Amino acid sequence: MACMRHRKRTTRTVGATASKGARTRTSILERAANLATAKGLDQLSLGELADELGMSKSGIFAHFGSKEQLQLETIDHALSVFVERVVQPARLAPEGLTRFWTLCERWLTYCESEVFSGGCFFAAASVEFENRPGTVRDRITALVARQFLLLETELREAMPEGESTAYDEPIRQIAFEISVAINGANWHYQLFRDPSVFRRARTALAHALDRLSSRACRSENDRAVLQHP
Amino acid sequence: MACMRHRKRTTRTVGATASKGARTRTSILERAANLATAKGLDQLSLGELADELGMSKSGIFAHFGSKEQLQLETIDHALSVFVERVVQPARLAPEGLTRFWTLCERWLTYCESEVFSGGCFFAAASVEFENRPGTVRDRITALVARQFLLLETELREAMPEGESTAYDEPIRQIAFEISVAINGANWHYQLFRDPSVFRRARTALAHALDRLSSRACRSENDRAVLQHP
Repeated sequence: MACMRHRKRTTRTVGATASKGARTRTSILERAANLATAKGLDQLSLGELADELGMSKSGIFAHFGSKEQLQLETIDHALSVFVERVVQPARLAPEGLTRFWTLCERWLTYCESEVFSGGCFFAAASVEFENRPGTVRDRITALVARQFLLLETELREAMPEGESTAYDEPIRQIAFEISVAINGANWHYQLFRDPSVFRRARTALAHALDRLSSRACRSENDRAVLQHP
Repeated sequence: MACMRHRKRTTRTVGATASKGARTRTSILERAANLATAKGLDQLSLGELADELGMSKSGIFAHFGSKEQLQLETIDHALSVFVERVVQPARLAPEGLTRFWTLCERWLTYCESEVFSGGCFFAAASVEFENRPGTVRDRITALVARQFLLLETELREAMPEGESTAYDEPIRQIAFEISVAINGANWHYQLFRDPSVFRRARTALAHALDRLSSRACRSENDRAVLQHP
């Protein structure tokens, strides 16, 4: 899952000050990511963040220097949360369709449990910025593209050796269907608050994977995944 | 398709003045709906609209009285466009799966041809307002719910007599999968500008309908729809 590995930032300060500074920075970014999913990434206000965190506006400004920098670091923070909640747990699952299913299942759980108060950060930010050219849009688009690629790559890697080329077109199609089912469930839930939509998304995932047929199974675990987990 | 029939507004003025007033109002709403998909419904600015239409800000204000009223009428205008482009052409198609397929096909074409410059109005506005309680959110949510219901209802009506109850659960599931494929293609296209995503959505639609099997066909037309149109 190299395509979603998160690059760690280096801090410029050292020792106790660095820890305190880093902690404050993380608190600001956590609050900013939540506010962004609820109100919009472009609606982030240094004043509102300062009020919520009991800090001064200039204190927040000192950490980021500009609203755009705050937005970019908020996006990177949201990515690190996605990697921690979705990508890393999947890496611990057995290789094959079991790992792929774990990835999808964790992704749905991340939306369902509202890790961010307004649902998936990238779903919200990508719609907000899709028609606003600039650095922020470029960063969001690149990360959403990596999320799509992650589904395709993991599904390709789940195929038995020598089979992934034959499955290339179905894999792309299934990755599309699964991606829209996950993001669609997130959208539907944010609008209507009906949790049964996640069951619908899981059924859609199982239907899409059904089309791979048992040829795609490498193990008993994988066969179980294809039998509607 | 009663659930998506659009209620016509009555104008309060009469004769030539009414026509001119109505035309101006429609011009404002057309421009507002386009701006809303590109920049956000909450970003609608009376000043920007006035500049673009060569009107005074007070001239625009006189038509709507408040930003919220402008937003609500913009939503209604977007609905009338959706009904004209998607719902009405489907009503002219032969009953059954052919009509259902026409509805989906027109919906995809409405997204693909960017009737609104930022893609589907309701997809954009619903994400923007999902976490902003109030009259505008209520109106958008009600209309998106009606769009979901339209898919379910049309699919149910396409079933042979006496079969729709047996198909109730599959119909709800298929309507979900088709809805997220259409909206997902719109989202993907707005982000990545890759038109092949609409082919993926059409394939997803055909896969979902495949599960109804040939029992759901009432005519030769319907059988052709199930054979991957």
